[in-house]
Amino acid sequence: MGRIICAGLGPGDPDLISVRSDRAIRGGAHIAYFRKAGRQGQARAIVQGMLRSDAVEHAMEYPVTTEIPFDSLDYNRLLADFYDDWAARLQALVLEGQDVVVLCEGDPFFYGSFMHLYTRLKDVVPVEVIPGIPGMVGCWHATGQPVTWGDDVLTVLMGTLPEADLLRHMQQSDALAIMKTGRNLPRVRNALAAAGRLQDAWLIERGTMPGQRMQRLAEVDTEDCPYFAIVVVHGHGRRPVAEGAE
Amino acid sequence: MGRIICAGLGPGDPDLISVRSDRAIRGGAHIAYFRKAGRQGQARAIVQGMLRSDAVEHAMEYPVTTEIPFDSLDYNRLLADFYDDWAARLQALVLEGQDVVVLCEGDPFFYGSFMHLYTRLKDVVPVEVIPGIPGMVGCWHATGQPVTWGDDVLTVLMGTLPEADLLRHMQQSDALAIMKTGRNLPRVRNALAAAGRLQDAWLIERGTMPGQRMQRLAEVDTEDCPYFAIVVVHGHGRRPVAEGAE
Repeated sequence: MGRIICAGLGPGDPDLISVRSDRAIRGGAHIAYFRKAGRQGQARAIVQGMLRSDAVEHAMEYPVTTEIPFDSLDYNRLLADFYDDWAARLQALVLEGQDVVVLCEGDPFFYGSFMHLYTRLKDVVPVEVIPGIPGMVGCWHATGQPVTWGDDVLTVLMGTLPEADLLRHMQQSDALAIMKTGRNLPRVRNALAAAGRLQDAWLIERGTMPGQRMQRLAEVDTEDCPYFAIVVVHGHGRRPVAEGAE
Repeated sequence: MGRIICAGLGPGDPDLISVRSDRAIRGGAHIAYFRKAGRQGQARAIVQGMLRSDAVEHAMEYPVTTEIPFDSLDYNRLLADFYDDWAARLQALVLEGQDVVVLCEGDPFFYGSFMHLYTRLKDVVPVEVIPGIPGMVGCWHATGQPVTWGDDVLTVLMGTLPEADLLRHMQQSDALAIMKTGRNLPRVRNALAAAGRLQDAWLIERGTMPGQRMQRLAEVDTEDCPYFAIVVVHGHGRRPVAEGAE
């Protein structure tokens, strides 16, 4: 029996892939990755030039949703069928004795799509998951400042959350990383403004990649924000509470 | 003029260092790292066997504090002098034309000690900072489960925080990573119990390293916890709020 190796790719610069993932990718006979239909896909783009010339590629293309609302039950069923189908196909390869390298942007266990295959396969075939540098780490490096130090609290939020939830976390945390921005950016911006944090917020696109762009969020046209851009607010080094001072 | 290269080391397994950091470490003529006096130090231990045979090592040993309370103003002054002194020594090497590789566990911009050198040097000499996989990522991989998916909120907390602050964040976040545990572990455990999360909490020591250990926090002897052990509570995949449903 072969095995599934999920290779965390890190934030985008191929030089920031771990030594272990790099080795798995360069040696892989079967390489699988998610992408939108008709696109090259970000994961595949990151490993451009790294694959064996005889590598067999398995592009796992998300079902197209022109007819069905993105957040409907029907769409969720379509997506579950899609993951079931690919889990079965990868499992068949592993049972034939093949190793299959599944590419995963960032860290596979941190909001990674791989988890949908992982839950279906982990008790059936051997699965190795190689950690990666999360995308948000690449984005805070783009700012050239430490995101946290001392006793700072960092909260990671999705721009899809209700504004009241966003606001509450923003008021209580020192540092923030906000993902899934895109069309949610106006809500994120409103919440940051209400929390008095808008002037400290940066929007980073394509962190560590060619075309990396960083802007103050207050100066961004919110109509024009890619879904994968990340908002970062830095902590200021919360001082430890002295022993016994509570 | 040479430059400072801060090489993020990741969570501990040398195979999880990025390709770029790996290259810098193996090629480095000058290698600097923090450690406690009289210890080998964790950063140095991670790169064992990787350094050039002629590499010059600069062990930056923290000032000993047997006489002075750890959280006093005097100690902070001692520490500031220590960072000033090492910043000046590394700067002198760079001005002589040398590149100096500074090792940093985890990610240098995520609670990294390197920031104390960085703030002193970044406007004086060229400094390159190479991201790393944060230690907490290695710890959640040790659990073999995704830490976050869907719209989960992740909060990173220090065990040094007051119990009321810990509790408030624990009640409001889906996933948690809690660092600086050690003698703070009883307080962390109390707060998790009060938040109803203790049964879901794992304590991970030496994530990705030899001697890696994972226990349910509820079953741990809180008297015997290393400072660098990390508590992880997994999210359960918060469902996105449907558009317009707020």
